[in-house]
Amino acid sequence: MEREALLQAVEKELPRSRFEHTLRVAETAVRLADRFGADKEKADLAGILHDYCKYWPDERMRDWIIRHHLPSDLLDYNKELWHAPVGAEAVRECLGVTDPEVLDAIRYHTTGRPNMTRLEQVVFLADYIEPGRRFPGVDEVRAVAESDLDRAVLMALDNTIRFLIDRGQKVYPLTLLARNDVLERVSGKNSS
Amino acid sequence: MEREALLQAVEKELPRSRFEHTLRVAETAVRLADRFGADKEKADLAGILHDYCKYWPDERMRDWIIRHHLPSDLLDYNKELWHAPVGAEAVRECLGVTDPEVLDAIRYHTTGRPNMTRLEQVVFLADYIEPGRRFPGVDEVRAVAESDLDRAVLMALDNTIRFLIDRGQKVYPLTLLARNDVLERVSGKNSS
Repeated sequence: MEREALLQAVEKELPRSRFEHTLRVAETAVRLADRFGADKEKADLAGILHDYCKYWPDERMRDWIIRHHLPSDLLDYNKELWHAPVGAEAVRECLGVTDPEVLDAIRYHTTGRPNMTRLEQVVFLADYIEPGRRFPGVDEVRAVAESDLDRAVLMALDNTIRFLIDRGQKVYPLTLLARNDVLERVSGKNSS
Repeated sequence: MEREALLQAVEKELPRSRFEHTLRVAETAVRLADRFGADKEKADLAGILHDYCKYWPDERMRDWIIRHHLPSDLLDYNKELWHAPVGAEAVRECLGVTDPEVLDAIRYHTTGRPNMTRLEQVVFLADYIEPGRRFPGVDEVRAVAESDLDRAVLMALDNTIRFLIDRGQKVYPLTLLARNDVLERVSGKNSS
C-alpha cells in the first residue's frame, strides 16, 4: 500500500482527534529520525500506523493477543498497552506492512523494551512529545529531545513509571527493563 | 544455636549502630507479627539475622552469589541488594539456621517478591519503619502499618521505586513484581 492509502486506512479506524495525533506523531518521528540518524521513511510509516487499532474493542484485542500468541501477561496489565503489540500484528495482516523494524517500532511504542533500536526510540518519544501533548514534565522531555535521544527516552520512561505509581496502577515489567537499560546507556555516557 | 548465641554471632559481624538497628528491626518485627498474625518467634529470628552479612566485602558476597547459584542478575544491580540473599545462605551455612520461612524472610527483606508470606512482609516492613529510620514518607508508612500490612508494604515498595528513579538508580525487577502483586491484593480489598 502507498502512504496515501495507509493514511486513509488509519483514518477510518480513528476518531478525528486521534487521527490528528497520529499525523503529529509521524511528523515528530520524522524530525527526530532526521536529528538522531534513524530511517525517516520508516519513522513516518511507524508514526502513521502506531495507533491503528487503538479504538478496537477490548474483546477484539484480547482475541488477537491470544490468537497471535502475543505475550499473555499483557492480559494481566492495563488495556492501554494492548493496542501496540496488537497493532503490529494488525497492520501486517490487514494492511500488508511487513518491515520488521517498522512493526517493532509499533509493537514497543507504549511499553518500550531493553535494547530499543533508534527507530523504536524515535517513535516511542514522538508519541510522548508530539506538540499536542500537555502533561507535567513534557516540556522538559521536549527540551532534552533536542539533543539527547537516550536521555529523553529515559525521562519519558521515568515519568511514565512515576505516573503509574502515583495513580496506583500496575507497571508493565518490560517498561522497567527498558528504563533500567537506557539508564545504563545514559550512565555509561556520563562516565565515559 | 540459642537466641543469645545468634545475637552474639551477629554482633561480631556488624558495627555498633547497625547492630542496634538489628535489635530495633527484631523488636518491630515481633510487634508487627503479633498485630498481623505471623509467627513472632520466627519474626524475631529473621529480624536478628536479616543484616548478618551487610558488612561483608563486596567480593565475598559476589563469590557467594556465584558459588551458591543465587540469581546471577543480582550482579548487574545495586550491591545493596546482595546482603539479603547472601545472608540467607550465610546464616544457614555459618549459623545452622534451617527454617525455610525464616531464610526466605531474610532473602527477600530488601527486594520483596510477589506472593510474600506474612512473615516476609513483616520483616520487610520492620526494616523499613523501625524507630531509627528517618526519611521522607516513613511516618505515613508507620501510620498505615498500625492497621494494614499489605497497604504499608505497598507504600514502602512505591517509595523505594520512586526513590531509586529520582536518584537515577536501577530498580531490581523483582521489586516491581512485588509491588504490582501487593497492589493487586490491596485493590482487591478495595473493590470487595
